[in-house]
Order: sequence, then C-alpha cells, then structure tokens
Amino acid sequence: MASIWNTSSVTKVDASDAFQLPNITKFRIALCQLSVTSDKNLNLSRACSSIEYAAKQGAKLHVLPEMWNCPYSADYFSNYAEDFDNVDASPTLSMLSKAACDHGITILKAKHRKIHLFDIDIPGEISFKESDTFTAGDKPTIVDTEVGRIGVGICHDIRFPELAMLYRKRGVHIICYPAAFNMSTGELLWELVQRARAVDNQLFVATCSPSRDSGGYYTIWGHSTLVGPSGELISTSGHEEAVVIAEIDHSKIELQRKSLPLDDQKREDIYKFIET
Amino acid sequence: MASIWNTSSVTKVDASDAFQLPNITKFRIALCQLSVTSDKNLNLSRACSSIEYAAKQGAKLHVLPEMWNCPYSADYFSNYAEDFDNVDASPTLSMLSKAACDHGITILKAKHRKIHLFDIDIPGEISFKESDTFTAGDKPTIVDTEVGRIGVGICHDIRFPELAMLYRKRGVHIICYPAAFNMSTGELLWELVQRARAVDNQLFVATCSPSRDSGGYYTIWGHSTLVGPSGELISTSGHEEAVVIAEIDHSKIELQRKSLPLDDQKREDIYKFIET
Repeated sequence: MASIWNTSSVTKVDASDAFQLPNITKFRIALCQLSVTSDKNLNLSRACSSIEYAAKQGAKLHVLPEMWNCPYSADYFSNYAEDFDNVDASPTLSMLSKAACDHGITILKAKHRKIHLFDIDIPGEISFKESDTFTAGDKPTIVDTEVGRIGVGICHDIRFPELAMLYRKRGVHIICYPAAFNMSTGELLWELVQRARAVDNQLFVATCSPSRDSGGYYTIWGHSTLVGPSGELISTSGHEEAVVIAEIDHSKIELQRKSLPLDDQKREDIYKFIET
Repeated sequence: MASIWNTSSVTKVDASDAFQLPNITKFRIALCQLSVTSDKNLNLSRACSSIEYAAKQGAKLHVLPEMWNCPYSADYFSNYAEDFDNVDASPTLSMLSKAACDHGITILKAKHRKIHLFDIDIPGEISFKESDTFTAGDKPTIVDTEVGRIGVGICHDIRFPELAMLYRKRGVHIICYPAAFNMSTGELLWELVQRARAVDNQLFVATCSPSRDSGGYYTIWGHSTLVGPSGELISTSGHEEAVVIAEIDHSKIELQRKSLPLDDQKREDIYKFIET
C-alpha cells in the first residue's frame, strides 16, 4: 500500500492541464524510509512516529514506502490485507486517521493501484511474479493539493516512461513513487530511473522505500530520494531507517521549462503520446 | 554532420519490426572521440587515422562525433558546409569513400537530419539557438546492417524519449547518438540520458562526442560511451581524444527482454505511443 498525505484537503483535478503554480510554491516534503517487520502493529507505530516527527519538522507532504505495513513477501500479503472501504475495520486507516487528527493534517484519500505489476525472472538472481497474487490497477492517479498537483506510481510503475509522460501532460508537479526496489535492480537502476523521469518531464520526483533491514522475501535497496526538474539529486537517504526532509521549490520547474522548453520542442508531426 | 559506417552493405529496412538477431551477433564497435579544430583538413586527416586504427582493431561499426569536421560554432557552420549530393565536391565524403576502399569497409549512406534542434537559454550559463542556423530534419533514420538494425539521433535528439521509443518499436538494436554536449549539460545529463534510453528500451546506446579540447564556441564534455540493454555502462572514454573499442553482444538484448518483458508489460489500454 502506498500512502501519501499532506496538509491540504483533496480537491478535484483541474480541467486545465497547463502548468500552474500551486498555492504554496515552496515547502518541505518528508520521505519516511521505514523499517518494515513481520509485526504489523510495530510497523504501524513506527509509521505513526515518523509522521509525527515529519509534521514537527514542518513537512507538508509525507511519503511512506510501498508495503510499509507488510513485509514484501507473497507469504504475508493476504494475511496483512485490509478492507479499505471500512475505516474502523482497518488498523492502518485508523492509525492514519488518528495521526491526521493529532497533527492537524489531512490524509489524502486517493488510492493508487499499481498499474504495472512486477514480474521478473532472472535465473540465479531473482524470480518473482506479483501477478500471481495481485490484480493490477487500471488508471493513473492524480491529486490536486495546495502544494501542487501530484501523480502517483508504485515501484515497477517507475520503469515505464509512459506513465510519467502522462502525468507531465496532465500538469503534474511532483510524481511520488513509493517503492521497494531490491538489491540488484536497486544498485543498477533506482537512481537512474527516477532522475530520468524527472529530467525528461521537467518535474519533481520523490521516491520512498522501506529500509534495507526490512523483513520479507528479498533484500531492499533503500535510498529514498528527491530529484529536481533538471534531474538533480536534491536529497537522499542511505539504506537505514530515516526520514528525509527536503525542500520542493516549484519555481525550479518554471525556470527549467523556460530555459529549455522541451515540451515545445517535441515533434508531434513524427510521434505522439496519447492517453487511450 | 554525423557519420556512422560499418562493414556491411546497406539493406532495406525489414517489414517486420519484431526482435530478430542480426547475422553477426557479437562484434566490436569503435567510438572515435576526435579533437575538432578550425583546420578542416586536419579534422579530416584525424578522422581518417581514427578509422584506420579502429578498422585494424577489428571494429565493424565506427561512430564519429556530431560536427567532427567543423567546430561547434555558428561562425563556422556555413563556411564548412558541403554539398553531399556530389561526392567529388565534398572533401568529407571523398575522404570517407577513400577510407572505405583502403580498409575494405562499406560506408553507410543513410543521412540523419537532427530532428530536435538545440535551443536553450539559461541566463549566465548558456544561450544558443540552433534553429537560427539550421533546419530540422523531419524523419527518424533506421538502417539495417549485418551487425544489427541501427537507429540514429544527433545530440539534442537524445533528450526526447519518444525518438528512442519509436526506434524500439521498429526493432532497432543499437541507437547511435553522435553528439556534442557542453560542460553543464554534460556533467548533469550525458550519462543519465543515454543510460535511460538504453534501459527503458532494452537496447544498446552508443554515443560519440568530440574531445574537450575541440575549438569552437563552447567547451565540450566528451565521454563517448557504450551502454548495454540493462542500462549498464560497458565502456567510456575520458574527455581527451580517444577511440573507444567495445563489444556489442546482441544476446544481451534477448536475455534482458526475456528476464523482464517490459514491452509486454506496457499498458496500451491506458496510454499509447504512436508514429504520426
């Protein structure tokens, strides 16, 4: 599950997808790189503490990892699953709801269902098929907030430049990718793909991973990161439990797009990217 | 001008764009990172020597930089221009033709006209408008050879993921980008964008730049590089004049696409990339 929340209420996505500065142009984001164990209550209480810490640091947008309440392993998925249509029956939503009250923050209600499931088979290295356990989502997720228009992807979604291009076309300022890359793809690709999505679309990319000492089937890379619209690495963590607090300044998007108007330079007479 | 040549004859692009192993699955590529001066004859003779050296090293595909016969500066462009429709009136084509005879190699006749012109304006850092001097090309360039199907882009073309996606869809194995990135975009983006194009499309990317000590308006980054289909850096140069000799093994493409079939995982029910 990916949870992203901030201090704004949820508003309807604006009909206009042109770049617009949000109400708050400069603010702090928190990337809560949590250690995820097989003790679900412990996971919830750690997440709760991180939210509290980040709120005290003035963070207006909090990003938690993919699968932060459950180890990333097919053995756990069904036991840790919750019914999100009923807050009272969901310990995770109850905790988030309480945290929202305690810290005066608003939980974003948007739910993103991972669009691209992670099915991989590298003999001798890794073999995993999410599609054995999960059903993929079938739509992009865009949420308007006072700190900007946010697009959401989960982990393997980041491997597909098309999703980021779609968000760019829809006026998104920040793409948040809760994720849990493993050691081999982590070392090779983690920083690369997030910087690529940012620089190709001239927007912010925020990733949040569990820490490496998390339980579960495979070892997690960590390194939650914020990347700016010229592909620059703004802030990143190591692989241990940590909360990255970093600044997002939307004027950087404006400056970057004005200096190098990639969008105007695209050749729609030769190729075109469309939503279907 | 971008020149790419190899030992094969030019064949018509196959109607089928499905992945097919070329006749030669493993071979050497040469990236000739040339020092480019305001002395055109010297540029030609250096290029000639590099081709000879690379041929002796057994390289079957030779890539030269963008603007290797002319310094990258608007002051020189018109004086150094040549009429490519008449080999005898073109010192550059004459040299290439002679080199082909001398070393028993075949010059690829495909011409790629840069599709995306480089217009940038970063106050205090760099301001440049290629569109003041050049007319952009209006089509992708794909060439079938015995060492693989090759797609061509020049410099700023690499900034557009769409061109690489188009080549991927058309069954290209190697995208060659002759280029001349400058110091600021070079440090920030050069390695990033070539690795991104390779990993997102699971193919080889070869770049070739002039060396840093080249003449002209701005300082060139260098670092000609070969990247493999999982985004791995196979070989790269520093910023000085050099010939990078590296191996391309097409079985890596097959392996990568089999392990992680990104193409099958795309969601054409949500987004689609099309040629127009």
